[in-house]
Amino acid sequence: MADASTRMGLQLRSTVKQEGIVEISLAKVPTPEPKAEEVVVRIGASPINPSDQGLLFGGADMSTAKASGTADDPVVTASISPAVLKTLAGRLEQSLPVGNEAAGVVVQAGSSPAAQALMGKTVAILGGAMYAQYRCIKAVQCLVLPPGTTSAEGADCFVNPLTALGMVETMRAQGHTALVHTAAASNLGQMLNKICIKDRVGLVNIVRKPEHVDLLKKLGATYVCNSSAPTFMDDLTAALTASGATVAFDAIGGGRLAGQILTAMELAANKTAKEYSRYGSTTHKQVYIYGGLDRGPTEFNRAFGMAWGIGGWLLTAFLQKIGFEAAQKLRERVAAEIKTTFASTYTKEVSLAEALRLEEVAVYSKQATGQKYLINPNKGLR
Amino acid sequence: MADASTRMGLQLRSTVKQEGIVEISLAKVPTPEPKAEEVVVRIGASPINPSDQGLLFGGADMSTAKASGTADDPVVTASISPAVLKTLAGRLEQSLPVGNEAAGVVVQAGSSPAAQALMGKTVAILGGAMYAQYRCIKAVQCLVLPPGTTSAEGADCFVNPLTALGMVETMRAQGHTALVHTAAASNLGQMLNKICIKDRVGLVNIVRKPEHVDLLKKLGATYVCNSSAPTFMDDLTAALTASGATVAFDAIGGGRLAGQILTAMELAANKTAKEYSRYGSTTHKQVYIYGGLDRGPTEFNRAFGMAWGIGGWLLTAFLQKIGFEAAQKLRERVAAEIKTTFASTYTKEVSLAEALRLEEVAVYSKQATGQKYLINPNKGLR
Repeated sequence: MADASTRMGLQLRSTVKQEGIVEISLAKVPTPEPKAEEVVVRIGASPINPSDQGLLFGGADMSTAKASGTADDPVVTASISPAVLKTLAGRLEQSLPVGNEAAGVVVQAGSSPAAQALMGKTVAILGGAMYAQYRCIKAVQCLVLPPGTTSAEGADCFVNPLTALGMVETMRAQGHTALVHTAAASNLGQMLNKICIKDRVGLVNIVRKPEHVDLLKKLGATYVCNSSAPTFMDDLTAALTASGATVAFDAIGGGRLAGQILTAMELAANKTAKEYSRYGSTTHKQVYIYGGLDRGPTEFNRAFGMAWGIGGWLLTAFLQKIGFEAAQKLRERVAAEIKTTFASTYTKEVSLAEALRLEEVAVYSKQATGQKYLINPNKGLR
Repeated sequence: MADASTRMGLQLRSTVKQEGIVEISLAKVPTPEPKAEEVVVRIGASPINPSDQGLLFGGADMSTAKASGTADDPVVTASISPAVLKTLAGRLEQSLPVGNEAAGVVVQAGSSPAAQALMGKTVAILGGAMYAQYRCIKAVQCLVLPPGTTSAEGADCFVNPLTALGMVETMRAQGHTALVHTAAASNLGQMLNKICIKDRVGLVNIVRKPEHVDLLKKLGATYVCNSSAPTFMDDLTAALTASGATVAFDAIGGGRLAGQILTAMELAANKTAKEYSRYGSTTHKQVYIYGGLDRGPTEFNRAFGMAWGIGGWLLTAFLQKIGFEAAQKLRERVAAEIKTTFASTYTKEVSLAEALRLEEVAVYSKQATGQKYLINPNKGLR
């Protein structure tokens, strides 16, 4: 039987309106009665990852954000450019729930043994609609956290950890032996460093600030290049030559960085080439763009021969490709190492209503390294 | 025994000098005595393909070209920008022969039966150093042309025909069912149209001039989009929706076209999508850049979800990948259809010395559709 207090819950919603605005608000929604194989999780913590912000903000220019509604029932609106709006035809006028992942306590369970076994357990879950007080989900989708793990500690068990592990797995599967990562001082970047140190994989970190060089060096990183330094291309070429990295994962997307990486990889490859080839090195050089911290256009000069590729990389597509069992192994590693390798740090914990305050939106929408928010949808509500 | 007249021959050479110029000239070189498995081909015709011009001009700005030497022993020099020069470290101060492919008559043969069998035959050959009066090459590398085929007709048996066939093969191997081609009115583009009509493969042609739309329509092309037209993006999206093309081969490289193609592919994919996905369609959309008619930077907006790739495509890498036997089948098809599907047209036939006249360089270095040159290295020399 459901506790009366779990029957309804707040859920964050994002709607792109055809006049070119996004409207973010809170809805009071009934909690579904769990089917036999399902459980209801009372969400304790859900991170605001860059990967959530596409759906949340609908590509709107958040510098135009306006607040309305009340403190308990806030509404945020912001303008979307016509060019971006054109790409959003598929979600127009739909009130969509947001939030990829979360952790919380199972407060209600369906009749199946698998579901019943989870009652009272703290679990991590993935699957959208996590910016909500309650989330009904299949028991099989719950990752049980080790005893003593809090929701905040387990909130990011999937997106960043599996992305970091997915990068290393993709590197291996495609025959590369070391990798490059950009925006490397992020939570994800720090996890990737810990994985690569533990698994003895060469990793070239690219950051944009001197303090992030120090941060990663303290973590034990071997190669850290600052893209703001005048010596960046030389530093990067040297690190690529030493590490042998021929695949990169780029969180930034816009600007010239992806092309610079390919150019430096080509320079590194040609250092060992025996004779000139008019088509460049035969070493395949690959950049995967998995984020869009810079939403501007990507630009590159093709000064890297013919054996190169740039493409999108998406965690869900990667997990589908490797299949359930291989993915489950990765998930179990995350749960086992959630307080060490995969530990995240957050700047602030906010309620759903607080997440819609303009002063908070202004901070977390910047997606700056070291400015990561955690939503606690039940904060202050019981 | 070698005929006295074949013992020495003219050969075109290109040298990038460290002070930042390219020097193109003619060298008098001894013809190698063929080994048992080799033959000497007296070159009758060799095309100046875009793929030859990278090696020939070394990325120099040909508007700075200057002539020196004499009419019979001409020298062309031109300036190379410091940025381009940096990428040419591997070929500095080396006098390199040029010319990917040619056709000619076997005038001398090694002692092996395979080599002897080729004496007097007109053959097509691939392998560099073809802008020369004589080329010594292994018998196994010679593609015997059908009786009655001239050197001019057989000059382009490899680069354009195998590239066109390679595009269709790559499309099939990667699970696509139709393809896009840019600069589609070129010799290569016309071949590709004939292949696709014959093999019933959907082909979306992108051209830049209205007269090229007419040219391809007359050839029987179903989809031809003019990228200069104000309705281009709509026209392209409609053609992609109708054809189902999800892979493109782009000869242009620079500018926004590659990104526009991916954007239109995404718009086409979303026309059939059942629900909105924040990460765009799951249809993998691919653009292969195989040429650089626009040597400027490539720029794109990533308005096409996460399932996309842009990469280099190189004929030699493709042929290596499919292996000798599969490649041989393609070559045999080319020889059999050299006067029909794979027929090329040329604007002008020039001698080696004429190819170094500034007024000719100015024309063929533009790589404009319908301005293709054929070198006859023995023209006027006997």
